[in-house]
Amino acid sequence: MTDEADRHREKMEKRKAVQDAEVAAKTIEKGLLIVHTGPGKGKTTAALGLMVRALGRGWTVGMVQFIKGGWDTGERHAFAAFGDRVTWHTLGEGFTWETQDKARDIAACRHAWDVATGLMANPAIRLLVLDELNIALRYEYLDLAEVVAALQARRPDLHVVVTGRNAKAPLIEAADLVTEMGSVKHHFAAGVKAQEGIEF
Amino acid sequence: MTDEADRHREKMEKRKAVQDAEVAAKTIEKGLLIVHTGPGKGKTTAALGLMVRALGRGWTVGMVQFIKGGWDTGERHAFAAFGDRVTWHTLGEGFTWETQDKARDIAACRHAWDVATGLMANPAIRLLVLDELNIALRYEYLDLAEVVAALQARRPDLHVVVTGRNAKAPLIEAADLVTEMGSVKHHFAAGVKAQEGIEF
Repeated sequence: MTDEADRHREKMEKRKAVQDAEVAAKTIEKGLLIVHTGPGKGKTTAALGLMVRALGRGWTVGMVQFIKGGWDTGERHAFAAFGDRVTWHTLGEGFTWETQDKARDIAACRHAWDVATGLMANPAIRLLVLDELNIALRYEYLDLAEVVAALQARRPDLHVVVTGRNAKAPLIEAADLVTEMGSVKHHFAAGVKAQEGIEF
Repeated sequence: MTDEADRHREKMEKRKAVQDAEVAAKTIEKGLLIVHTGPGKGKTTAALGLMVRALGRGWTVGMVQFIKGGWDTGERHAFAAFGDRVTWHTLGEGFTWETQDKARDIAACRHAWDVATGLMANPAIRLLVLDELNIALRYEYLDLAEVVAALQARRPDLHVVVTGRNAKAPLIEAADLVTEMGSVKHHFAAGVKAQEGIEF
């Protein structure tokens, strides 16, 4: 073995000891409140990835979409492969500039929230995604204090993922894990359209 | 209809006109080079989400993991549901502090890259994830110029997703879409361990 390889091995042995100690120090298991926010891509797709991982562990999962309307998406087709282990509700009416009817938007969000709380009470579900809930909260279509209180009162083994830009401060405060998706570069700016299989 | 509802509708009609014009201005279709980088969570999970969406559109997809070793993951089990429409190669040997052998790490990355270029040449594959390739590039286990040139020379209909922290500037330059996952809050800091179904 060369001197350089020896030095590398010694350095990595030390690093492994540090890593192992860090891992050993973490002992808590709990259902997480996860928030994906920020202007960049990946908020909903990372939630879909978590659903896939959970399904691979045999879990039953739920999805409630607060804003997205009834349009056809690839993900919805794909999750059909997992049968009744996926409960999927697309309950939005589209973006506010599509419906142009605030009272209808509020009623749709209220209904979606009722469905969400029903799923939170279902002990079979281990992971629940509340897609674009942040948008409903930003427009004040739902009561922030009520939503945060319900999320904080979730079952100890339930993981909840909330997505959407502009997450409210009390939600971030209540969360265990918050990731901000930042847009470094976006193909829409270069004239590339939203493409089937990528954006929907 | 109330005055407020009228005002909302008028505002949203104007907003819809702006949105529609923006969408209409985007006409290019192309296979994207997508980079998920940054210190936050969601880089790999968002790539898994893109795989799910693509599978829902009937595409065949590929995954090459450059660093992650042979440990058991939920996602790998889940994607088995899609049969031979998913080609999955976990070719890493684990983190550098696990192997403690730089020559072996380099050989593993080189092999993974050869597998990746083979998949890039396979016209059946429409989406290819190169997981943690950024780590292999950061440690200079692969030649950056060679990798970027190969990614730029991809088939016009192939979407490639590269994940990992510390994406190199020439890769960002070559990419169509770059998202930086920022860590706002992380449950590991609160002593919560990596949990099955969430982290792996």
